[in-house]
Amino acid sequence: MSLSLPTRLGHDGWSRVEVDRVTPELDGGRHAVKRIAGERIVVEADLLADGHEVLAGRLLFRRQGAHDFDEVPLVPLVNDRWRAGFVAAAAGRYEYTIEAWIDQYASWRRGLGRKVDADEAKEVDLLVGRRLLEECQDRADGRDREAVAAAANSIGDAELPFPDRVRIALDEQLLEVVARHPDRSRATRYRHVLAVVVDRPLARAGAWYEFFPRSFGSDGQHGTLADAERMLEHAAGLGFDIVYLPPIHPIGTSFRKGPNNTLRAGPDDPGSPWAIGSALGGHKAVHPDLGTLEDFDRFVARAQALRLEVALDIALQCSPDHPYVLEHPEWFSRRPDGTIQYAENPPKRYQDICPFDFECEAWQALWRELLSIFEFWCERGIRTFRVDNPHTKPLAFWEWCIASIKDRWPEAIFLSEAFTRPKMMYNLAKIGFTQSYTYFTWRRFKHELVEYIEELTRTEVAEFFRPNLWPNTPDILPDDLWDAPRSAFATRAILAATLGASYGVYGPAFELLDNVGRPGSGEYQDSEKYQLRRWHLDAKESLAPLLRRLNRLRRRHPALQRNDSVRFHECDNDELLCYSKAGPDGQDLVVVVVNLDYHHRHSGWIHFDVDELGLDPHERFQMHDLLSDRRYEWRSGRNFVEIDPHTMPAHVFSIRRFLRSEQDFDYFA
Amino acid sequence: MSLSLPTRLGHDGWSRVEVDRVTPELDGGRHAVKRIAGERIVVEADLLADGHEVLAGRLLFRRQGAHDFDEVPLVPLVNDRWRAGFVAAAAGRYEYTIEAWIDQYASWRRGLGRKVDADEAKEVDLLVGRRLLEECQDRADGRDREAVAAAANSIGDAELPFPDRVRIALDEQLLEVVARHPDRSRATRYRHVLAVVVDRPLARAGAWYEFFPRSFGSDGQHGTLADAERMLEHAAGLGFDIVYLPPIHPIGTSFRKGPNNTLRAGPDDPGSPWAIGSALGGHKAVHPDLGTLEDFDRFVARAQALRLEVALDIALQCSPDHPYVLEHPEWFSRRPDGTIQYAENPPKRYQDICPFDFECEAWQALWRELLSIFEFWCERGIRTFRVDNPHTKPLAFWEWCIASIKDRWPEAIFLSEAFTRPKMMYNLAKIGFTQSYTYFTWRRFKHELVEYIEELTRTEVAEFFRPNLWPNTPDILPDDLWDAPRSAFATRAILAATLGASYGVYGPAFELLDNVGRPGSGEYQDSEKYQLRRWHLDAKESLAPLLRRLNRLRRRHPALQRNDSVRFHECDNDELLCYSKAGPDGQDLVVVVVNLDYHHRHSGWIHFDVDELGLDPHERFQMHDLLSDRRYEWRSGRNFVEIDPHTMPAHVFSIRRFLRSEQDFDYFA
Repeated sequence: MSLSLPTRLGHDGWSRVEVDRVTPELDGGRHAVKRIAGERIVVEADLLADGHEVLAGRLLFRRQGAHDFDEVPLVPLVNDRWRAGFVAAAAGRYEYTIEAWIDQYASWRRGLGRKVDADEAKEVDLLVGRRLLEECQDRADGRDREAVAAAANSIGDAELPFPDRVRIALDEQLLEVVARHPDRSRATRYRHVLAVVVDRPLARAGAWYEFFPRSFGSDGQHGTLADAERMLEHAAGLGFDIVYLPPIHPIGTSFRKGPNNTLRAGPDDPGSPWAIGSALGGHKAVHPDLGTLEDFDRFVARAQALRLEVALDIALQCSPDHPYVLEHPEWFSRRPDGTIQYAENPPKRYQDICPFDFECEAWQALWRELLSIFEFWCERGIRTFRVDNPHTKPLAFWEWCIASIKDRWPEAIFLSEAFTRPKMMYNLAKIGFTQSYTYFTWRRFKHELVEYIEELTRTEVAEFFRPNLWPNTPDILPDDLWDAPRSAFATRAILAATLGASYGVYGPAFELLDNVGRPGSGEYQDSEKYQLRRWHLDAKESLAPLLRRLNRLRRRHPALQRNDSVRFHECDNDELLCYSKAGPDGQDLVVVVVNLDYHHRHSGWIHFDVDELGLDPHERFQMHDLLSDRRYEWRSGRNFVEIDPHTMPAHVFSIRRFLRSEQDFDYFA
Repeated sequence: MSLSLPTRLGHDGWSRVEVDRVTPELDGGRHAVKRIAGERIVVEADLLADGHEVLAGRLLFRRQGAHDFDEVPLVPLVNDRWRAGFVAAAAGRYEYTIEAWIDQYASWRRGLGRKVDADEAKEVDLLVGRRLLEECQDRADGRDREAVAAAANSIGDAELPFPDRVRIALDEQLLEVVARHPDRSRATRYRHVLAVVVDRPLARAGAWYEFFPRSFGSDGQHGTLADAERMLEHAAGLGFDIVYLPPIHPIGTSFRKGPNNTLRAGPDDPGSPWAIGSALGGHKAVHPDLGTLEDFDRFVARAQALRLEVALDIALQCSPDHPYVLEHPEWFSRRPDGTIQYAENPPKRYQDICPFDFECEAWQALWRELLSIFEFWCERGIRTFRVDNPHTKPLAFWEWCIASIKDRWPEAIFLSEAFTRPKMMYNLAKIGFTQSYTYFTWRRFKHELVEYIEELTRTEVAEFFRPNLWPNTPDILPDDLWDAPRSAFATRAILAATLGASYGVYGPAFELLDNVGRPGSGEYQDSEKYQLRRWHLDAKESLAPLLRRLNRLRRRHPALQRNDSVRFHECDNDELLCYSKAGPDGQDLVVVVVNLDYHHRHSGWIHFDVDELGLDPHERFQMHDLLSDRRYEWRSGRNFVEIDPHTMPAHVFSIRRFLRSEQDFDYFA
């Protein structure tokens, strides 16, 4: 009447060691965590066994697809917790798990030592050790085998004096030799093989610059990719890492939208780049007015020469004129009247857009074709994609598509443009998106920013969701930038560039302080989505100098290239936000104080808790403002700040420590 | 070059709905959570899908072993979270999981409604609805089928006026009918079937009383079970729920311990009941000096008549004289000199105890025999076991053994006597122990008690670990009870009985204030483990009246039968500990204030945050002290208390609310 017994003892059966609470582990192993190549990936686990014996274990890891695991010994911490780590040198998907066992030899040796101390060691105790060493001998080879055999002989040799045999048995080096050849026949393998997606460093930190190449023609003409090369120089000059282009494909004419999203386009209106596809081609073609595929290759090569990466915007949808609609009507759903179902979110209708039916009968062929779009551009050298509205396509599709691309191009980066409900945003990250847009765009006040950034950086979310902070996009002119002064743009730029390891701007509109919204929408007036715009990048009021400075600081300060070390510091004025970041080794401390009020000067007292930052509370600190180049002196505790947003809405301090002797008033960097 | 595609659409393939973060779920489904029969088991999950369609889902549950699941619809909360619940009427192991899908009909209906509001509804919209209804018709039967068919006809009937067809399409009742027959061909089943162990109410709350029957013979003789029946009356009179007996089996003579754990026993020394087994029998026998199996049956029957449950102490170890040692030498490990390995934790040796070798070649036969010990006593009517030192036997054994017993006797309760490292204590609970001893025994000060009780009741630990609070055991006279005054015993009794839904005492020693420890040990002087003791239960100083009162309060107040509602309240005096508990419906509030200083009178101000307790801050409350029968008046905010430990070291208040009108000064209970 009992339940069936465990199958067997040892591998795949029962064993005395339980491996529990492995970290990192996401959703019971369902999703991979994310790390960066070159970082140490630290894994911990609880190891438990009945009784009082000594345990041992190893972290097993391999690149996905490899047959064998590499191994590294687990080191005990406190409270039955163990730890080990490995470094993934290159981007790719890695797997890891834990194996643990009872170390019979170490247990015996520890017991012998205690018995010796209590003068209780007996002949039979040494015989137990000899037996364990003889077993080890069978597992070892080469010199280790010889060493173990010699020790077994000596320990069991009743001719030798007892104390000599004990001394040999307790030898530290012998313990190390035996530990290299453990008896793992009854080891426990953790029940999951877990996964970590390792990305290149640009996935963690980068500054993105978005622009519409078509707006940069000469004399008001539709710009070409060749014309847009000057924008590459512009973005590179400002210190950005990535330029990203809205869709560059032919644009449909059916139901083409006119300026300001009107339903009727004039004959010269260029249409929205997101209404993809016409008789001239679809997602694998370049709009003829922008140039040819060869022009595109030249554009990418020019970017590379400037150390810029080009990101493409991939929107998996079609205009009614897309070749897919004509050649593969089976990929679209049809209404009972036979017409193709256009996009709608009732009562809103988007008749210029036909969504794919990811559940159609021919879904496998459709999915393969959509994957081939990414493959096409990867083969042309593109490694970074901004994906439009991924939350309106199945999660299962993205999981397969992104894994397929990253299997071939592990360095690929996918930025999820999903401004939607929080859990969907998080799930897109869990199933594979490298980075994501965030609610930063609408987080304006201190408590909102603190709460949100802490959720992103101090909770489990940080294991899978990499925020990319955008103060604006072509779709969004947030409320607080409508009719806003220059100080507002400067504030949002500083927040985005220093709170986020990754940040981006819809560049021309942002640096030229475009603050005119279209009433009744959250969009820009005369949005560049529907018409060409002329941007005067050399305008006197341009924010370019500040962006250039911020990007330079970001490159110089490792602290600004990460999110994990961000800490908020108390200030008695709710309009002043203070936070710090440290580099990977706790060095390179950067402290930022931002005046969140775009209009008025504010002052207040920062509570600067240096203990928390690992600094000596008895030191004084020189705070070097990297924006103004001014220097201030702070101490542990309360420090006064005053910020006029119209001069510069923030301090971005680098901390330099004074030597503790009063004579040595000089500082070191 | 792409990874292989998902297998297929729908069941066992991909689907658009993701089910994530199901709660309760322990360790990714590895371990079951615990609940009590009759309680509603609430399950929640995140449901996510691309796009904007309406989702639907159900909670699936069944008793383990049943083929089919019962189902209950999930109800949406906020933020993509859904909830449903079920009640397990009887003890047993239950399984649950989640299924969710896109509700095409509800999505279409919502869209139609919005189009109607915007005056945008078209003929084709109704045709889409008709198609969905026709599909539903194929899934429905009986009246539902007729209703759906009629609606499909009317909605598609171009002869009818358009507004009438719209009205039919938007009908609420039709929505309900269709919802009963959803299209689940593309539903997502959550990736785990999760388990919940449902126990009877005594597993949640009970008062335990331990005593050694052999000490209750007449005239200093070894007591029998028949003699010990008067102790059943005693425990029942004090209001305890469970009496538990140390092992009742024959005791070995080899290496028998004498009084105070001395290595040499005299001829009349009875030995330790934990040195189990002699030529007279083993774990399935009763010590002849206690009586026969028939005497045991009578003892149990007498207990039942008194509404007491008898718990046995099962210690899976043998004296060297146990029949197992002679008949099954293969179950014990041997040292190289051929002798059986006795228990040791070097340099300590326990030569009167032979541990089983759970990993021996014949482990399956051994495990089955050990299981049969529990089966033997279950068949004699025992349902509650206190298991001695389970942490020195493999977790895998317990998991199998407990599941096997509970599969046949779902009402069985296993109390884990593991005073060991925290994670091992927790893991024993995870793999099946119903309840566990705790560190309460050594938690003396306010911050220790608050931290520990909050860990047990306010974290994930509460999902699997049911604390049983013991101020003493035959093995442990804690430091603070050495040479302690009566007030110390009273304080610890009140804390155990009101902080813990389950608590217990090693009764005679506790109620008679035995405060004499054996120097150099944490044990009692003249411990009953090694010798008979005479207890004068009618002694004047006995704590019996307080225990009787506490147990009566525990039975009367549902609040005291649970741990989940415990809340600590601030007090400005660190020697005063204040906490409250509420019954299952938030009613029956009990507030306890304990003076933790056994020696001195203390007073202080309690911060009574009535908001948190769901009370009206404008009310006044009558605090009825159930120990002293005195009444006090409290208000929201600060309230004064003063406690003399020598009178009574605590208040145990029941709150009675005054009516809000000053005229109605009477209270209602």
